[in-house]
Amino acid sequence: MSYCYEYPHPAVTTDVVAFTVIRDDLQVLLIRRARPPYRGAWALPGGFINPDETLEECVRRELEEETGIDDVFMEQLHTFSAPDRDPRERVITTAYYALVPPNRQEIRGASDAAEARWFALEGLPPLAFDHAHIVRTARARLVEKLEDPATAFRLVLDVFTLSDLQRVHEAILGVAIDKRNFRKKILGQGLIEETGAKRQCGAHRPAMLHRVIE
Amino acid sequence: MSYCYEYPHPAVTTDVVAFTVIRDDLQVLLIRRARPPYRGAWALPGGFINPDETLEECVRRELEEETGIDDVFMEQLHTFSAPDRDPRERVITTAYYALVPPNRQEIRGASDAAEARWFALEGLPPLAFDHAHIVRTARARLVEKLEDPATAFRLVLDVFTLSDLQRVHEAILGVAIDKRNFRKKILGQGLIEETGAKRQCGAHRPAMLHRVIE
Repeated sequence: MSYCYEYPHPAVTTDVVAFTVIRDDLQVLLIRRARPPYRGAWALPGGFINPDETLEECVRRELEEETGIDDVFMEQLHTFSAPDRDPRERVITTAYYALVPPNRQEIRGASDAAEARWFALEGLPPLAFDHAHIVRTARARLVEKLEDPATAFRLVLDVFTLSDLQRVHEAILGVAIDKRNFRKKILGQGLIEETGAKRQCGAHRPAMLHRVIE
Repeated sequence: MSYCYEYPHPAVTTDVVAFTVIRDDLQVLLIRRARPPYRGAWALPGGFINPDETLEECVRRELEEETGIDDVFMEQLHTFSAPDRDPRERVITTAYYALVPPNRQEIRGASDAAEARWFALEGLPPLAFDHAHIVRTARARLVEKLEDPATAFRLVLDVFTLSDLQRVHEAILGVAIDKRNFRKKILGQGLIEETGAKRQCGAHRPAMLHRVIE
């Protein structure tokens, strides 16, 4: 039963769970579907693979076509294969997660998307297909990946305050973090340095700006 | 370009990198291919997905058909999609890694495999397709996963000595580990308990047997 040429091949797609932090919220990028099935429903950006591209090339192309967002960090999450996950025909999808820093959040909807928008993870609309399950899987992976300091650095600007970094951790973990312990831990890693400049924000004291040591 | 029904669908397969520890070696399960392409070459167990099964069902079925091994821990590794990775047609494969304890290593070759055998990771024969790349990816993941104590427990019997556990760590990491530090760390985790029995092995002092605390 190993050589199953007699069977029709499944269709293959990619989908992407693009995360960003806006204010205090972890947010996810969704598109509103312009075509059936699930026309008008919100869904993850994604689509069918072309014959000459890899899955990673496919997911980057789809994200750019449907939302205008490109050149962001991406990693493969999981391949989802329940036989009935798409009403049209069998579709196997490889999902990626992307980390979008504040200067790349701007959206230009196009292609098969009627609209594209950032949604707070805690207030997602009903999603097409098994996309709610994919989002939950991606969120769990993101929490794991936060143990690698590079993850939070990918969700702030190149130059950032320690409060920016703390906000990213709090948004992903969904809990408040003690400021003093957080600073001690981050500075103890020896991965970032002060730029020498400060940023004034509202009525607060100017905050020291940092960058990742190359 | 997102709805590509006009394109032929790729074929979809699964492959599995099954790891075990034999004596002091991390070993990988290979099959010798009975059919072209790469007839006679060694390869990972795997094959084409059936219409009614998930990827995980497919990989468990293929492993059992080709090697007789079943009911072992498996986790999805990565989906590989280089357009030219198979000379027959486009084939996208989702790879899994499996952890095989000593009492499940016995092989019965069958199905599309001419032969199945365990190979030390440091002495693999040339492999078909991109399987050498898949094995390297799996090995890197296994090293990461060793941080979770459950990983090593899955590569020993239900009842084991601390030396068994140390041997698994050393085989995966490829380095000698200090015995005293290792014991201190493992016992400090509070995850295992003594069974009360001991095992005599050669001329050594009888070693205390342990089990994972439920």
